[in-house]
Amino acid sequence: LAVDHDVADPALATAGAGRIAWAAARMPVLRSIGQRFGEAKPFAGIRIGACLHVTPETAVLIATLAAGGAEVALCASNPLSTKDDVAASLVVDHEVATFARRGEGVAVYASHVQAVASREPHITIDDGCDLIERLHSSGPERLRSRVAAADLLGGTEDTTTGAAHLRAMAAAGVLTYPVVSLSEATTRAMADNRYGTGQSVLDGIVRATNTLLAGAKVVVAGYGNCGRGVAARARGMGASVIVTEANPLRALEAVLDGYEVMTMRAAAARGNVFVTATGNRDVITAADFAEMPDGAILANAGHFDVEIDVKALAELAGGRRRPVRPGVEEFTVGGRGLLLLCEGRLVNLAAADGNPAQVMDISFAVQALACEWLVRHRGELEPAVYGVPAEIDGQVASLKLATMGIEVDELSPGQLAYLKTFGG
Amino acid sequence: LAVDHDVADPALATAGAGRIAWAAARMPVLRSIGQRFGEAKPFAGIRIGACLHVTPETAVLIATLAAGGAEVALCASNPLSTKDDVAASLVVDHEVATFARRGEGVAVYASHVQAVASREPHITIDDGCDLIERLHSSGPERLRSRVAAADLLGGTEDTTTGAAHLRAMAAAGVLTYPVVSLSEATTRAMADNRYGTGQSVLDGIVRATNTLLAGAKVVVAGYGNCGRGVAARARGMGASVIVTEANPLRALEAVLDGYEVMTMRAAAARGNVFVTATGNRDVITAADFAEMPDGAILANAGHFDVEIDVKALAELAGGRRRPVRPGVEEFTVGGRGLLLLCEGRLVNLAAADGNPAQVMDISFAVQALACEWLVRHRGELEPAVYGVPAEIDGQVASLKLATMGIEVDELSPGQLAYLKTFGG
Amino acid sequence: LAVDHDVADPALATAGAGRIAWAAARMPVLRSIGQRFGEAKPFAGIRIGACLHVTPETAVLIATLAAGGAEVALCASNPLSTKDDVAASLVVDHEVATFARRGEGVAVYASHVQAVASREPHITIDDGCDLIERLHSSGPERLRSRVAAADLLGGTEDTTTGAAHLRAMAAAGVLTYPVVSLSEATTRAMADNRYGTGQSVLDGIVRATNTLLAGAKVVVAGYGNCGRGVAARARGMGASVIVTEANPLRALEAVLDGYEVMTMRAAAARGNVFVTATGNRDVITAADFAEMPDGAILANAGHFDVEIDVKALAELAGGRRRPVRPGVEEFTVGGRGLLLLCEGRLVNLAAADGNPAQVMDISFAVQALACEWLVRHRGELEPAVYGVPAEIDGQVASLKLATMGIEVDELSPGQLAYLKTFGG
Amino acid sequence: LAVDHDVADPALATAGAGRIAWAAARMPVLRSIGQRFGEAKPFAGIRIGACLHVTPETAVLIATLAAGGAEVALCASNPLSTKDDVAASLVVDHEVATFARRGEGVAVYASHVQAVASREPHITIDDGCDLIERLHSSGPERLRSRVAAADLLGGTEDTTTGAAHLRAMAAAGVLTYPVVSLSEATTRAMADNRYGTGQSVLDGIVRATNTLLAGAKVVVAGYGNCGRGVAARARGMGASVIVTEANPLRALEAVLDGYEVMTMRAAAARGNVFVTATGNRDVITAADFAEMPDGAILANAGHFDVEIDVKALAELAGGRRRPVRPGVEEFTVGGRGLLLLCEGRLVNLAAADGNPAQVMDISFAVQALACEWLVRHRGELEPAVYGVPAEIDGQVASLKLATMGIEVDELSPGQLAYLKTFGG
Repeated sequence: LAVDHDVADPALATAGAGRIAWAAARMPVLRSIGQRFGEAKPFAGIRIGACLHVTPETAVLIATLAAGGAEVALCASNPLSTKDDVAASLVVDHEVATFARRGEGVAVYASHVQAVASREPHITIDDGCDLIERLHSSGPERLRSRVAAADLLGGTEDTTTGAAHLRAMAAAGVLTYPVVSLSEATTRAMADNRYGTGQSVLDGIVRATNTLLAGAKVVVAGYGNCGRGVAARARGMGASVIVTEANPLRALEAVLDGYEVMTMRAAAARGNVFVTATGNRDVITAADFAEMPDGAILANAGHFDVEIDVKALAELAGGRRRPVRPGVEEFTVGGRGLLLLCEGRLVNLAAADGNPAQVMDISFAVQALACEWLVRHRGELEPAVYGVPAEIDGQVASLKLATMGIEVDELSPGQLAYLKTFGG
Repeated sequence: LAVDHDVADPALATAGAGRIAWAAARMPVLRSIGQRFGEAKPFAGIRIGACLHVTPETAVLIATLAAGGAEVALCASNPLSTKDDVAASLVVDHEVATFARRGEGVAVYASHVQAVASREPHITIDDGCDLIERLHSSGPERLRSRVAAADLLGGTEDTTTGAAHLRAMAAAGVLTYPVVSLSEATTRAMADNRYGTGQSVLDGIVRATNTLLAGAKVVVAGYGNCGRGVAARARGMGASVIVTEANPLRALEAVLDGYEVMTMRAAAARGNVFVTATGNRDVITAADFAEMPDGAILANAGHFDVEIDVKALAELAGGRRRPVRPGVEEFTVGGRGLLLLCEGRLVNLAAADGNPAQVMDISFAVQALACEWLVRHRGELEPAVYGVPAEIDGQVASLKLATMGIEVDELSPGQLAYLKTFGG
Repeated sequence: LAVDHDVADPALATAGAGRIAWAAARMPVLRSIGQRFGEAKPFAGIRIGACLHVTPETAVLIATLAAGGAEVALCASNPLSTKDDVAASLVVDHEVATFARRGEGVAVYASHVQAVASREPHITIDDGCDLIERLHSSGPERLRSRVAAADLLGGTEDTTTGAAHLRAMAAAGVLTYPVVSLSEATTRAMADNRYGTGQSVLDGIVRATNTLLAGAKVVVAGYGNCGRGVAARARGMGASVIVTEANPLRALEAVLDGYEVMTMRAAAARGNVFVTATGNRDVITAADFAEMPDGAILANAGHFDVEIDVKALAELAGGRRRPVRPGVEEFTVGGRGLLLLCEGRLVNLAAADGNPAQVMDISFAVQALACEWLVRHRGELEPAVYGVPAEIDGQVASLKLATMGIEVDELSPGQLAYLKTFGG
Repeated sequence: LAVDHDVADPALATAGAGRIAWAAARMPVLRSIGQRFGEAKPFAGIRIGACLHVTPETAVLIATLAAGGAEVALCASNPLSTKDDVAASLVVDHEVATFARRGEGVAVYASHVQAVASREPHITIDDGCDLIERLHSSGPERLRSRVAAADLLGGTEDTTTGAAHLRAMAAAGVLTYPVVSLSEATTRAMADNRYGTGQSVLDGIVRATNTLLAGAKVVVAGYGNCGRGVAARARGMGASVIVTEANPLRALEAVLDGYEVMTMRAAAARGNVFVTATGNRDVITAADFAEMPDGAILANAGHFDVEIDVKALAELAGGRRRPVRPGVEEFTVGGRGLLLLCEGRLVNLAAADGNPAQVMDISFAVQALACEWLVRHRGELEPAVYGVPAEIDGQVASLKLATMGIEVDELSPGQLAYLKTFGG
């Protein structure tokens, strides 16, 4: 094999190719970007290092960048999410330097990140800062001189938590190159949090419990993007939805959207299904569990497993806890059985398939265009954390509409002039 | 073991008991009926023979009847749906004479039905007429004399097709005892077709394809109970829904409910997901496949696998067909890939878990009360097919509301009198 | 003027013609029936006597029948609903014998009904039985001989109450000719009760009070056709909807549709807007008023003004009642102001414009086709009350779809055969 | 009468008091602010000059400020919207210096603004900048010295257009004191644009035409706050909704919300009802009118009457235009009748009652708290245009929830700390 690599079994490539083809067929936005990249070659001579979940959708992103002329190297951002067949196909069919084995230990994981870092990428792609941190740990001075020489253009970071970390680095003056934070892109927040998560959270709950949502009381904690997605879909499935919120503005919006709003304590006694989506901790606590009816289902849709106070639940139950179905554990509290899904971890990833490929299509389209933007602005950017430029959001939305065959109006010169004068 | 039986492995009883307990916890209506039966013993001295899918929910029904004093014997109505652990628990924990082994051959299957028939049940419970037919095939004369002696009270039949068959038998004068046809019960049509199927069909589609419903064009063929359930839920998930119908009354209702209505030919070119729910054959045919966009998903929600013309699809594709995911086969037609789910069979059973236990709770509550009704009307009923008495529907609805903790208004004497005079 | 008549002022004809033209433009189904009638002349030689509200929509119906060759005479079914300009145009422009003056007294009203009766119609059209009763009161013997001679074909009756009265007459053996009861037609119940009333009831409430429905708690009493229309629209406007019902089947359906269901007593304390749609009396009573919050709005959507116990409300308030806006009276109960709309009469008629012309189009299309059906079955029908034949419902639905430019599928011979064998 | 004033007829005060009481009863947020103001007297010694529509809701605002100790003078911001009875009651019952006569001419209008300006207010309240401009026109130097002496604290402006004008003044260095722009407040945008307008636009269309929305195709141009309100409510009334947009991000959001999205040209041929809500001009133009079906309804929900190209419509129709109902003019284009509502002006104001009092309650609560904020920040603010401080939005939302009896969760110290570390 022509490229450097470390994957479980190159013979799995055929299986991986099939899964990548399935994903590619569902990612028309990225495909259309890839087509343009293939002609314009914006990444000619550019080395990209990526540290991402090694999945079929990621493979489509990597292939898109490679089509644009990039020389890409990939390692896993999480040892458990690697699909070995996809890794194999990347090596065999796409000749991408790939370093990822499902279930790899800490040392191997670190060596894989190092393998990518040592290729001295012009652009880094991260999902949790591991690659950026590795580069910085090996000496900021060298990085600064590479940046000065326009040999290191910048990076992208996928997670909110990672972006917060990078901002702290920037504030402390130790960030050496510009990074685009992707998680705040409008298209992405929309597709991912509101529509993707709204569907997949309910999907996870139904798969785990096969409960009927019609006529159920579903309590949604938090009315941010994710919570309102879950609330809208639960109502759409025939549930009667209660929203809890600490932010009065969001609470009022939920009221005006026709939901019942109350405290979690009050909702606890009335709900059949509870979904937390606040981004905060201790949203459902001991005093709430004590109120819940027999058979209540507890699911978390927030990033971290801190929203449902599982420790308090376990203490209330004492020894009276037992697994009852895959992903479902019953805790007996005051004679009533409460069903905790997936130990309080993200229910849409743990009990369902995570985001549909159509959603990843939008996220990764933002990713691809952000890389192109870094190339275009080579040498112009300070070492800081940048939001996604509005033009990229608009471009992704336009491409998505085009791939759906949807045409929208164009503003006439007269309308543009009018907006300039009177526009909101 | 005290009872006659033929099950795969009695040692599986513990596992089965767990699953039965899970189901029982989700079937409060049947539980409350069981409680009353346990006190009133309406089936004291009554032998019941049942031929049903051997599932946890069925076990709860059987236990409910047994609690009422019945001596129940059970065989499988389908060799493939038997859960061996449930069968084991029925024998070991409930001492129910059970004859069912998953995957049993035709001869064993027949011997199991015979085993139940030979116990000379006072009441038969059927899901496809197998037990009724077996009894009739062994000599109607004996049956008639048992009926005359009030030793054979009647039966129930679960399927629409079975009821049609029994009506033909009644018309031909060969039906020897009264049978209650359960499938037309209002509560059941409501819970099962509209709400249960609406949810589980979408669940099946999402599990098989992980497609995003928000923004998709979903075409629902048929606007009966099942179709309107699917349409409502698809809209609730953010899809833009098109309905096709041959019946102008239903088509108009769909229009007034805010759906787009058009012919399947017109819809074919616009849909991303197609769901058939008409109860008819050839609903999507060759000329329609030819119009569909790349990636279109084809799913059937009707009882039989005749709604999507799979043969025509295969012919159009020639050899260009291949499995792409579990339960998903891609047919290439005119360069576009069409995705057929589960070979055109019922997608909610084939790709998801079928109806939630809460739905089975209502179906089996009707079942239990119909058996009680047969006992109450011992000796009064002609050998004919009866609909479910309205009082049973009302009783099931009341119990369901009560188990949800919902109180409804009661009519005062003045209101009852008013309705008698002016009422609709 | 060529025809016999008694109207307020023939000079109003021009204004009336304008309003009739507006209505006709919104009644395409009736227009298409009129076109066919104009060619086929099904009423050639037929005299039709009609006793209906004299409105623009009625004029379109009358013109449709006249186009079919009928000689029509019209009187008012209610002295208060007569539009004098419409009556004038019917006389002047359509040469229809019209007897109606807005606000006419009892004696004039009776003489007008008599004027129509004395023309010995072949077919009677009623909205409350006045014309039928008048004919019967002048001697059933003559009617019977006219029926025997096929000189009197039958009648139609529009109201449910009228149909109940006629059924009592038939049971007592005094009904002399066949009457079609229109109110149960499926198309009509759908368009009128569910969709028409759903919209117009909310319209009436908003016009009377200009209250914001988004975020309001709307309590809907009754989940029949009308109640579920109101509930669906209230939810559609952003309200959080509570349903009260005495019928457990309907209550359960409301639950499964995602509404909260409880007793009126429980709902009273929580609602901001109350709408009664039960067809029963005393739905909201003294004990309920005592629970209601300040500013609660009370509206009735049922046919009679008996659903809200206005007398009890007045007693609770003592003298503390006063009009606060047109159609709104405030009753102070326990220091809280309750707002009764339109004295508890039908709020969509009293505070809004009643049903849209598109809804009347469907109702009157059924009316016109029922008259044609009476002609076709001349001499074949017993003196009894008939429901609307299913073929008429289907025909109206088909015409409505056609006028909307909507095409639906047609069943192939193979599909028809399949349905005959397996069909539900 | 104790105060200086110029109103039409003080004898109308009783009627005005009744209307003010009705409004006050529907404005609980403002009432609760008034209660606090009554105790804390934040405006003791403060003169407030207001130039607003003289309506019952405005009177409640004025009374609220007066309760806080302010000495308020009021003139009309539009001669046509003045309610003379309300003006009378303000003078007689509230002793507010009021200068407003319905239909007053330009000179009187100007003298009224001058009357308020000459009282040298500490705070100005504007709805279109008239008062601010008057003050500035009489010499910025004096204003600057008053500001320097903390004798002139600042102002508020209600309209978007006004705020744009003030920003231009600030940029040109001629704005002499700080002004809070109210129109961007989140609570207000929510209550007013999305929920208030959503309801009142449909209300206006139904009042003007009595058309049935169920089953209609409603085309909504623009998917901003206002457009999405209209779209959601139209769908809620059973319409099939098409959205047109020029902004791809918003277009994509509409798609993901389940609406059909297309160009206006494509939508023109399919719609029954058209609503413009873009804030731009020429949204529906000649080429679109040419496509529309007979009976199409054209309504504008945008602030200015430029969205529907009425001139082009008139030219297409030539002389073939005529009023057909109050507020409805029919233009005949190519043999088809198009119905323009209210000459293309804001349909919810022109054909309905504008925003519900509950919506004005929120807008004016922001107004009252912004005045208090100016007092609190006396001497601290630059002469610039300020957005509404987030704390005011939160406070209004909290008060609104409290007046609805809704409690929300409070964050614990642990949760606040968590958010500080990880929070979005």
